[in-house]
Amino acid sequence: MKPERREFLKRGSKAAGLAALALQSKKAQSQETSKPGTLIRNAGAYGDRSEFEKAGRIGEEGSNGGLTPLQDTVGIITPSALHYVISHGNVQPALKIDPKLHRFMLHGMVDRPLVFSVDELKQLPSVSRILFIECASNTSPKRSMDLLTVQQRHGRTSCSEWTGVALSLLLKEAGVRKGASWIIAQGAEPAKLTFSIPLDKAMEDCIVAYGQNGEAIRPENGYPLRLITPGFEGINNVKWLTRVKVVNQPYMEPNETAQHTSLRLDGKARWYMFELGPKSVITRPSGGQRMRGPGYNAITGLAWSGGGTVKKVEVSTDGGRTWQEAKLQEPVLRLAHARFHFDWLWNGEETVIQSRCTDDQGNVQPTLEEIAQIWGVEPDYFRTTTNHVARFNGIQPWRVTKEGTVHNAMLF
Amino acid sequence: MKPERREFLKRGSKAAGLAALALQSKKAQSQETSKPGTLIRNAGAYGDRSEFEKAGRIGEEGSNGGLTPLQDTVGIITPSALHYVISHGNVQPALKIDPKLHRFMLHGMVDRPLVFSVDELKQLPSVSRILFIECASNTSPKRSMDLLTVQQRHGRTSCSEWTGVALSLLLKEAGVRKGASWIIAQGAEPAKLTFSIPLDKAMEDCIVAYGQNGEAIRPENGYPLRLITPGFEGINNVKWLTRVKVVNQPYMEPNETAQHTSLRLDGKARWYMFELGPKSVITRPSGGQRMRGPGYNAITGLAWSGGGTVKKVEVSTDGGRTWQEAKLQEPVLRLAHARFHFDWLWNGEETVIQSRCTDDQGNVQPTLEEIAQIWGVEPDYFRTTTNHVARFNGIQPWRVTKEGTVHNAMLF
Repeated sequence: MKPERREFLKRGSKAAGLAALALQSKKAQSQETSKPGTLIRNAGAYGDRSEFEKAGRIGEEGSNGGLTPLQDTVGIITPSALHYVISHGNVQPALKIDPKLHRFMLHGMVDRPLVFSVDELKQLPSVSRILFIECASNTSPKRSMDLLTVQQRHGRTSCSEWTGVALSLLLKEAGVRKGASWIIAQGAEPAKLTFSIPLDKAMEDCIVAYGQNGEAIRPENGYPLRLITPGFEGINNVKWLTRVKVVNQPYMEPNETAQHTSLRLDGKARWYMFELGPKSVITRPSGGQRMRGPGYNAITGLAWSGGGTVKKVEVSTDGGRTWQEAKLQEPVLRLAHARFHFDWLWNGEETVIQSRCTDDQGNVQPTLEEIAQIWGVEPDYFRTTTNHVARFNGIQPWRVTKEGTVHNAMLF
Repeated sequence: MKPERREFLKRGSKAAGLAALALQSKKAQSQETSKPGTLIRNAGAYGDRSEFEKAGRIGEEGSNGGLTPLQDTVGIITPSALHYVISHGNVQPALKIDPKLHRFMLHGMVDRPLVFSVDELKQLPSVSRILFIECASNTSPKRSMDLLTVQQRHGRTSCSEWTGVALSLLLKEAGVRKGASWIIAQGAEPAKLTFSIPLDKAMEDCIVAYGQNGEAIRPENGYPLRLITPGFEGINNVKWLTRVKVVNQPYMEPNETAQHTSLRLDGKARWYMFELGPKSVITRPSGGQRMRGPGYNAITGLAWSGGGTVKKVEVSTDGGRTWQEAKLQEPVLRLAHARFHFDWLWNGEETVIQSRCTDDQGNVQPTLEEIAQIWGVEPDYFRTTTNHVARFNGIQPWRVTKEGTVHNAMLF
């Protein structure tokens, strides 16, 4: 262990002289009748968290809403109760779906259209995978460039263990006809939005999921069925899934062409770009938090890439002049959040910290300036534009002040 | 795909003629104003499951209690709300711990005794691991040989992603003195039980955990701190952890010597055996469930081993005459639950199904008969004994009747 870290750890320690406390414990033990192993008590059928825990989803402006509190989560699993939620229009009826009445239909360019109840799907061979989901609008300049916390800026991504039936199994059973090249997925929410996904992707790794983190999917996340489309932008993970239609072209519905594409400077739109990232963000210390004080400060965060597996995360604590490799928590799973750690000795001076993700395809997370250069605009364009800039994966800088406060430093 | 499976899948399908349904959906879409991407609605700060989901922990006799419903869980993560719970004596005061007041002390044979608040621990380098915990009394013949369901017989095991500080880091910081060989761990429950764990294990992979599945540990599972002792019997995962004392011998407290050892036939006790398994159980179809009917029936279950990593799970569907290898859900994680799948074509006749786990140390899960042989007793001894038989990892046979009902077949 480095002497510097020991120096830090000492802060956590208090003088000894605790023998008295230990003795009290021994006394208590002898007075209490111990009934080991035979009792099961104090456990409700379905437990809840401690009344002292307050981590919660918020909206961008602090209203009750759907952004995951990344500053509070640990490890790589997002608790289902805190998984991010973005809804399209009024989805109240979809939140009340009775699973006994729900059906999933597979039709279109297939030899044998199929309809399944949820129970029928549960009796088929299943697959489980830990996968991130991220909304393409996460960290969208238009809506979050001036926002302060990691939750407000990056809270549209979460990671769960999803369980269900491989869509490829159902497609093979239905018999996909020649010439088919896309699927159209639709959910039960009133807006009945549809999403076009390449058939190749559907055959590769899509899941008709009924399980999330070991139990049924939560209502706001698509109960009882959700199409999981690993690594693709979140909207392709269709909630309250009712049908998949096999077709020979994308449908170009308004929500796909007008709402979920990126307008270019020349007025044309970039669309049907599915894969997200590579991306990473330091979740602690992050905007709105305070440093422990000069000396040891653990840096931790999350990294992910829709292109594959996170291979490397580098951290800079000097405004981007130098970068050092962070430690990745093993195992690093493909298309899942990866947790990184970095031991930092802060000298107490103002500085900027940031992280940079590289995936196993060699894709590297760009800086805001690099993205602007590609676009042929000034960086400040991304704060002032009213265009929707999807899939924004610029490096997130956090400014640390002498006073130990931490602030969003993107364009600040 | 095997034709037999296709045969099965057809049962799930209904005739086509569903174009009308599809058309209705299109109509609904055009009538509803779609406001994609801009709204975050319908998501509480902390979500709850669907009102239609009823999976719950039960006690052995059906009372409200702490056994995980393994027949209902999917994947390998156990929802924290369903993690098994066994309490010792009255633990009510421990369930109300204010984390701001809680302290963890590391003392005994160390150079520098240390005391940490929960917040201080959270600011240290952290580790996260997906790990099973199992009570040594799980499937204990004494208490469950006659019970019927997989929850009743095997529900004392669960699997979570645990996050915290490596105990080795804290021990190195404290400076372990020469001659130390054990640690004694203690929690805040009124009984103040202590547990002796070899120092080697503490240095290898124990975690002072504050996180479970991405958020704070649940109260009944040790909030705010729990000692995680991977692969060792559950009781060494000390809840509401208040201190670890470094010592030079095990303490042999009554709960260790009288309550948590196994009485041998010669009257002596086997104790300080820590590692569990290898073990596995078919969770579906399992006791109390019904078969789909003759034809395709998916078999799934969980396997684990305190000795290392699950290497192989075999399934027999003919009363143990022949065994075939099941498919393990990748990645298989060391000291975690592993999910296995097996495609079974049931011919409709009465039979017995069962699973057998082999770990990467070459340890193989034994049958009840093999255990009895080692003990020099008749198999029926395990139903009639009033002795506590800990770490019972015998193969679990389930009898499938012609009528499609499924029953515990161990000694039945």
